[in-house]
Amino acid sequence: MSATGESGAPGAGGEDRAVSPAEITAQVIARFDSCADPRLREIMQALVAHLHGFVTEVGLTEAEWAAAIGELTATGHITDDKRQEFILWSDSLGVSMLVDALAHPAPDGATESTVLGPFYVAGSPLRPYGADIAEQEAGVPAWVHGRVLDTGGEPIAGAELDVWQNGDNRLYAVQDEEAPDDHLRGRFETDAEGRFAFRAVRPVPYPIPDDGPVGRMLAATGRHPWRPAHVHIVVRAPGHRSVTTHIFDAESEYLGDDAVFAVKPSLMRTFEERAADDPERPEGVEEPWVSLELDLVLAPGEDEAAVKDLGRTH
Amino acid sequence: MSATGESGAPGAGGEDRAVSPAEITAQVIARFDSCADPRLREIMQALVAHLHGFVTEVGLTEAEWAAAIGELTATGHITDDKRQEFILWSDSLGVSMLVDALAHPAPDGATESTVLGPFYVAGSPLRPYGADIAEQEAGVPAWVHGRVLDTGGEPIAGAELDVWQNGDNRLYAVQDEEAPDDHLRGRFETDAEGRFAFRAVRPVPYPIPDDGPVGRMLAATGRHPWRPAHVHIVVRAPGHRSVTTHIFDAESEYLGDDAVFAVKPSLMRTFEERAADDPERPEGVEEPWVSLELDLVLAPGEDEAAVKDLGRTH
Repeated sequence: MSATGESGAPGAGGEDRAVSPAEITAQVIARFDSCADPRLREIMQALVAHLHGFVTEVGLTEAEWAAAIGELTATGHITDDKRQEFILWSDSLGVSMLVDALAHPAPDGATESTVLGPFYVAGSPLRPYGADIAEQEAGVPAWVHGRVLDTGGEPIAGAELDVWQNGDNRLYAVQDEEAPDDHLRGRFETDAEGRFAFRAVRPVPYPIPDDGPVGRMLAATGRHPWRPAHVHIVVRAPGHRSVTTHIFDAESEYLGDDAVFAVKPSLMRTFEERAADDPERPEGVEEPWVSLELDLVLAPGEDEAAVKDLGRTH
Repeated sequence: MSATGESGAPGAGGEDRAVSPAEITAQVIARFDSCADPRLREIMQALVAHLHGFVTEVGLTEAEWAAAIGELTATGHITDDKRQEFILWSDSLGVSMLVDALAHPAPDGATESTVLGPFYVAGSPLRPYGADIAEQEAGVPAWVHGRVLDTGGEPIAGAELDVWQNGDNRLYAVQDEEAPDDHLRGRFETDAEGRFAFRAVRPVPYPIPDDGPVGRMLAATGRHPWRPAHVHIVVRAPGHRSVTTHIFDAESEYLGDDAVFAVKPSLMRTFEERAADDPERPEGVEEPWVSLELDLVLAPGEDEAAVKDLGRTH
């Protein structure tokens, strides 16, 4: 055993001093100065500035930081190929709508966009004009029809609609163990006059998945998880900008306080109530139904942000 | 089949207009106005303001947002009970050091704190005075000894040191399949004169785990993953504030550009080089070794932020 007799100076030496929060932030930002990619440098330096700004402004404590690490970890672990809790955070904190608004600032007469949401699954079946997307009983029949137009009002032939929605049990097929994979979703092409039509059901309000970290945040902050009734549509056509949007039922609850901030006034439509014996009823319908006429308008241009199967393959 | 003849109005109606980014941010902040917990309200509203501020300032694109969702998802999926990639993000973006600086602003003569890091594992074995934490060959022997003192210079008996470090293969036991679980870690108690001593090895620089999302960020931004050589110590004693700190080898590389920004001048110490035949050599040492004398100073007070096994149980 050995122990030298002299004692070290207790604590910090005379010249040492604590490093201040502002100095730490400056150090981290400077560390990205040599990033060769100017866009990545801009993003990382702004991310550090705002992240540190948040932590400093609220004086985030070690216990709060640890709780945040725990929630992020839980978010990662609940996320799989059918559930995307990170997108749910982005939606419930309005980041998805913000990114959308920045990407699509001026509608110019084109149909406005809104969030993709966490229930999009690529590879829906291509269905013929007028086909039913409901593969089993799912609520009040809805006949949805209209045209895809350009901003000059001319029809676009061969445009693709990629449609998905929930049924009266509130669930999308991807959430519903009992439902066929392609239930309540499908792709449709417009005809030579730009026309499309499909059978669907009247969508219903539903809560976003609230049994995980986002649900805990909503409950802790006194927010509800509900979204107003809507049908999701992505419209794509060569030579035009795709649009990812919803059509909201103008009579739905929660239009004023959508949990994911996705409602835009221009996207509300009235589902017209029709009698069982209405002569315009779709084939096979023998009960009260609704109809929705809908024109969708695409801006000209390149499609820089095609919808991909985001984050699900990790 | 049915199709009404009249056409819907193309695009947005006359009164509709696009919702601006600033309006979206204001909507989301207002949604937290009714949060009953004032601290949670403050945190969520500041988080939204800074998150939206970041996205708006850089004009984050849909593709960049999707890439971020993908990296967060990958971070969640690489995180398990032995690897904590969210803490690695916090460390590599300087957030951990910032939270630490906010929690421990004034050293007041007490030993300064630094990051916990991702390799802390609770439940190290309690070892006797002078015991060796190396359970197998791990590098140059180091004799670490000194006292735990209060800020008045009085020794603290019964203080606990919780120590962990890497070996000359750069790895912590938790990273090293070949090493026993308790290799290079242990807890020690100070004696009646506040003294402690243990055998260790001289630590070596090492890269933070860089085969995941944080590593991709470092590579893409031209940063290296290296940390200067250090020994981790948490010191706890009743009636005093715990300190989570490192002791840095003052002769190490990377002291000026630690990948996790954890170096503070007051935490650097010189490991004194000793000859194999030095009469003060610890029992069993027959090779060149190093010694480190170290006094650790605790501030009085309550311990509000005991080190827990952060985020690993999800």
